[in-house]
Amino acid sequence: MITFDDTFRRQLHDLFVWRRDVRRFRPDPLPAGTLEGLIEIACLSPSVGLSQPWRFVIVDDKARRQAVIEDFKACNADALRSYSGERAARYASLKLAGLEEAPGHLAVFAEKATDIGHGLGRATIPETTEYSVVAAICSMWLAARAEGIGLGWVSILNPARMHDILSVPETWKFMGYLCLGYPMAEFDSPELERAGWECRRATADFITRR
Amino acid sequence: MITFDDTFRRQLHDLFVWRRDVRRFRPDPLPAGTLEGLIEIACLSPSVGLSQPWRFVIVDDKARRQAVIEDFKACNADALRSYSGERAARYASLKLAGLEEAPGHLAVFAEKATDIGHGLGRATIPETTEYSVVAAICSMWLAARAEGIGLGWVSILNPARMHDILSVPETWKFMGYLCLGYPMAEFDSPELERAGWECRRATADFITRR
Repeated sequence: MITFDDTFRRQLHDLFVWRRDVRRFRPDPLPAGTLEGLIEIACLSPSVGLSQPWRFVIVDDKARRQAVIEDFKACNADALRSYSGERAARYASLKLAGLEEAPGHLAVFAEKATDIGHGLGRATIPETTEYSVVAAICSMWLAARAEGIGLGWVSILNPARMHDILSVPETWKFMGYLCLGYPMAEFDSPELERAGWECRRATADFITRR
Repeated sequence: MITFDDTFRRQLHDLFVWRRDVRRFRPDPLPAGTLEGLIEIACLSPSVGLSQPWRFVIVDDKARRQAVIEDFKACNADALRSYSGERAARYASLKLAGLEEAPGHLAVFAEKATDIGHGLGRATIPETTEYSVVAAICSMWLAARAEGIGLGWVSILNPARMHDILSVPETWKFMGYLCLGYPMAEFDSPELERAGWECRRATADFITRR
């Protein structure tokens, strides 16, 4: 039986504190096999009924990358139009994705039609398929950060467009588009990095006892 | 800037390999404050637009626990009826939750109506709210395992019943019910623990390059 000690637990806590959604990347390429290695780790994640519904598409093709960038720009412009005044100015000032600079592009999908697991645990909450894929992304995120690699999860994209651009099966649900690379800068305090659009932290306020 | 070394990365990999959905718990209580500590760690997770939509309900009340157990039994019986023959026999033999024995019961919800983050990142994919809560559960799961505490995520429950039983706001979406406690047994090999309903592992087969 494997156990973990206080030193590891302290470092694991540091990892949680310092994991970030990275949007500014250095242009250096990632070592060959980096994305595949992170995908292997992602595949160790929990999944409903062991259905392992995660599907990964490494996007190397320049034209497809450019199409994703164009879609992001369109969706982001739409989002900006939904804000006004001070908040619009604030939104416009944010850098919300590192798609142009990130050396690694990885699209992640959930296979809704998988028969692996024979539907176990999915009857009452079918979204557990998507939740399993989120678990995979989160494992990858932590593993990347432990290797000094930044990850940014881009959700400001049109899922239907991602299907078209990446030519994936109809039964795959778009979950997110991940940018990976070495981060441009790190701060001395995690709170400095957090300060931005919204830095209120929700902790014990939201624990309810019944 | 904080960095991590090979020793930590190896242990982190072990943690991913050995994290399990635990369904057999020893009856020993968890030390006071354990659940609150794990919730604090969960709150370090990524969330869309920093919206932190996770909501936690510690369920100590005996009558409510019993009502959850009854709902699980009903949903599990429904699920069993959906299988036939060999597969039904196999399903019936599985222990799918440790609700009766687990000393810690924690229900987790997603606040769909939160204004924190002002909708940032949620316009194109509103489910990113739920995905943020999954991220929180996954952090908690790893942190628990690092402390030698097992966690089992129960999804064989009726979300509407969970609302009634736990009297939570209408805008909270039920995400999962977590059983926590010290695991009854650990095996020498993670694959031994995996062998069960489905032990096929999906890894590089599902990497597609475009």
